[in-house]
Amino acid sequence: MEIMDSRDLEQLLRNKDFKTIRTELPLMRDADIAFVIEDLSPENAILVFRTLPKDRAAEIFAYLASEMQEHIIGAITDQEVGSLINQLYVDDAADFLEELPANMVKRVLKNASPETRALINEFLQYPPESAGSIMTAEFVDLKKDMTVAQAFTRIRRIAIDKETVYTCYVIDANRHLEGVITVKRLFLATDETVLDDIMETNVIYAYTTDDQEEVAQLFAKYDLLSLPIVDHEHRLVGIVTVDDVVEVIHQEATEDFQKMAAMAPSEKPYLRTSVFSLAKHRITWLMILMISAMITGGVLAKYEAAFIALPLLVTFIPMLTDTGGNAGSQSSTLVIRGMALNEISTKDFGKVFLKELAVSLLVGLALSIVNFGRLLLMYPGEYMIAFTVSLALYFTVVLAKTVGGILPLVAKLFNTDPAIMAAPVITTIVDAFSLIIYFKIVEALLF
Amino acid sequence: MEIMDSRDLEQLLRNKDFKTIRTELPLMRDADIAFVIEDLSPENAILVFRTLPKDRAAEIFAYLASEMQEHIIGAITDQEVGSLINQLYVDDAADFLEELPANMVKRVLKNASPETRALINEFLQYPPESAGSIMTAEFVDLKKDMTVAQAFTRIRRIAIDKETVYTCYVIDANRHLEGVITVKRLFLATDETVLDDIMETNVIYAYTTDDQEEVAQLFAKYDLLSLPIVDHEHRLVGIVTVDDVVEVIHQEATEDFQKMAAMAPSEKPYLRTSVFSLAKHRITWLMILMISAMITGGVLAKYEAAFIALPLLVTFIPMLTDTGGNAGSQSSTLVIRGMALNEISTKDFGKVFLKELAVSLLVGLALSIVNFGRLLLMYPGEYMIAFTVSLALYFTVVLAKTVGGILPLVAKLFNTDPAIMAAPVITTIVDAFSLIIYFKIVEALLF
Repeated sequence: MEIMDSRDLEQLLRNKDFKTIRTELPLMRDADIAFVIEDLSPENAILVFRTLPKDRAAEIFAYLASEMQEHIIGAITDQEVGSLINQLYVDDAADFLEELPANMVKRVLKNASPETRALINEFLQYPPESAGSIMTAEFVDLKKDMTVAQAFTRIRRIAIDKETVYTCYVIDANRHLEGVITVKRLFLATDETVLDDIMETNVIYAYTTDDQEEVAQLFAKYDLLSLPIVDHEHRLVGIVTVDDVVEVIHQEATEDFQKMAAMAPSEKPYLRTSVFSLAKHRITWLMILMISAMITGGVLAKYEAAFIALPLLVTFIPMLTDTGGNAGSQSSTLVIRGMALNEISTKDFGKVFLKELAVSLLVGLALSIVNFGRLLLMYPGEYMIAFTVSLALYFTVVLAKTVGGILPLVAKLFNTDPAIMAAPVITTIVDAFSLIIYFKIVEALLF
Repeated sequence: MEIMDSRDLEQLLRNKDFKTIRTELPLMRDADIAFVIEDLSPENAILVFRTLPKDRAAEIFAYLASEMQEHIIGAITDQEVGSLINQLYVDDAADFLEELPANMVKRVLKNASPETRALINEFLQYPPESAGSIMTAEFVDLKKDMTVAQAFTRIRRIAIDKETVYTCYVIDANRHLEGVITVKRLFLATDETVLDDIMETNVIYAYTTDDQEEVAQLFAKYDLLSLPIVDHEHRLVGIVTVDDVVEVIHQEATEDFQKMAAMAPSEKPYLRTSVFSLAKHRITWLMILMISAMITGGVLAKYEAAFIALPLLVTFIPMLTDTGGNAGSQSSTLVIRGMALNEISTKDFGKVFLKELAVSLLVGLALSIVNFGRLLLMYPGEYMIAFTVSLALYFTVVLAKTVGGILPLVAKLFNTDPAIMAAPVITTIVDAFSLIIYFKIVEALLF
């Protein structure tokens, strides 16, 4: 059987057929093995994990969810823990330890080799979402006086432990980064060429404290496979590889989706997040927005006389506020996303304002005309009511779009996250103003 | 000067100092050169483009925005067009031609070499957003009876024209894909080893017609640098490289942001999109949602008697509908994003429903208690009104969250894009139901 699923595995475990597991399971890929292990009961997962070939156990372990990692660490011997942690790439080790309870972290570090322990401790100190927190220490370093042939010899000797071998880093005796050279460049040179003559010295790099989002932007801009990370003395301490960047891009987009829907961001997959934690991430913003919406209610209270005199006016409120909210969140979404992709910056303030103004004048006109027609169909002869509501709709759309387009930029100017100025906040603001506009026009035209 | 910006360049152009441009500009990276060219006037851009070294012009051209590409093509000679198109990687060439007016496409293809023309024509036939449309034809192919040393010789001979050399593809005489082998694997083997003995035959691949989103998911799952793409006879026709996948991930997230804010998706950066095109992408959904919100207005009309008798009731409407909309869009956003990341599928329907129900019971309770307290503060002694509104709020939140969590899954079951079931649609649906709930409770408790 070429692909085993968790049911096949459970069948083999029931039959105690460890021999088949031992020979068949390793034919699958690391990510797929982790995937079936995740689906097993904790007891079975450990039985299966122990059958894995020693040289692949660490890689497969790195693919597992943190609960399963914790469970496995709790069940294996100190010696097994030690061999596992020593074999993990240091970025995977740090990720895994960050999710582990403190007493288990202690046990893991106690069983690690002194070098691994020192390296992991260093990595654990980088701030979350920094370049340091996603980099790995396993890269190929070369010296600039080496020839291409010598470089190849060194790469072939140390490749087995390195996360990537395709971009090599040239450092001096003090580990200062002097240049980079790709294996493709080495392939194209003759064996006798000295690295100094062909290495790229105009190196793109990031600092350990840089934000992971900036790192991801460098990868996108320059089509990189890996990026050297230096400390503040410009010593090379690690590299970020493109597979981790792919994860960062997904993670940053997910965070923005969550913030834009008025939630505290969380990295954990939905189905693995507890009800209590989901509720906790949602309640703060809902509470703030609920209280703000009460202010909008206060606005309405001031116009009680109008809607007692003409109750029909109340029935247009959902259409006005919803359309305003939707129009505003279209604009804010485009601007927030444009800022996340570095396409829009605060210096484009004027451009965005004029563009949204122009778009809203067009869109507002189309909506108002359709609305006017529909109202006349439903309430024949009521020209003034139809005109009043359509005019209010027009101004609401224009206001919603200009405010929606500009507020994310304003947030940035005040060093706040633009993603906060998304649908929920925009809707709340636009609601209040659209109702004021509506009743002001009502007062002017109908009473 | 190490980095030139567009102002430096303009100064040099005014001085007609092409010599400095010719020597200094190429010291910069391709992406950065394209970046400064973008900022120049069209006339200056062409002058600068013509100074670029022949072997890098195509790479830099590929980084330019389509308007600038079109402008350059319009201004250079047939011979220059020919040399440019022959040097472009075929995926970049196809991307560029897709944005070009038909008459210019004709001119470009006429000046391409027959082989390039045939290849580009083939690539232009793949559906948009398919694996075929993002793949490139420039990969390293090997034969399984080669030794490692022979493989290295071949790679070094052909590396210069290949987009990546780090994963090589083993094909038979009919171009059927037999295996893959990474350069890292080659480094770790001895020179005499035959590829057949060390290549990976359990190959991950995709078909030309597969969706680019599925391709991106394979990269994320298996940490790939490139992926072979085969036709339906299983012949290797191209590869997708990770830099293109990074672009796809950004693009797919942007599309989802746009759809979730009720817009027709567009790939073009905001500042480069015309007002008319922005308006066109927004108007359809605004119109649909506006008309739907009128139905909600119709619901309100049925309860006119209630709010004439007690006008205060109207002032709670924005709070109820906004909180319902926000609560619902939190849930729908998490589920839509979870589905985009392949973490949630339609078989998790029951789990999502129960989770959202539990979360909404908790969150609804907290909001209702705060709301009850606030109403008593504002309207002392009005216990029944405070209780009525808070009860309506509770049911609204529970309904909003369960509906918000489930509708994206329902959309998927009907083969519709789940991203449509985001804030705007959820808000419109929840608005109508929350008002019905509100006035039903009002009728039962207050009248």
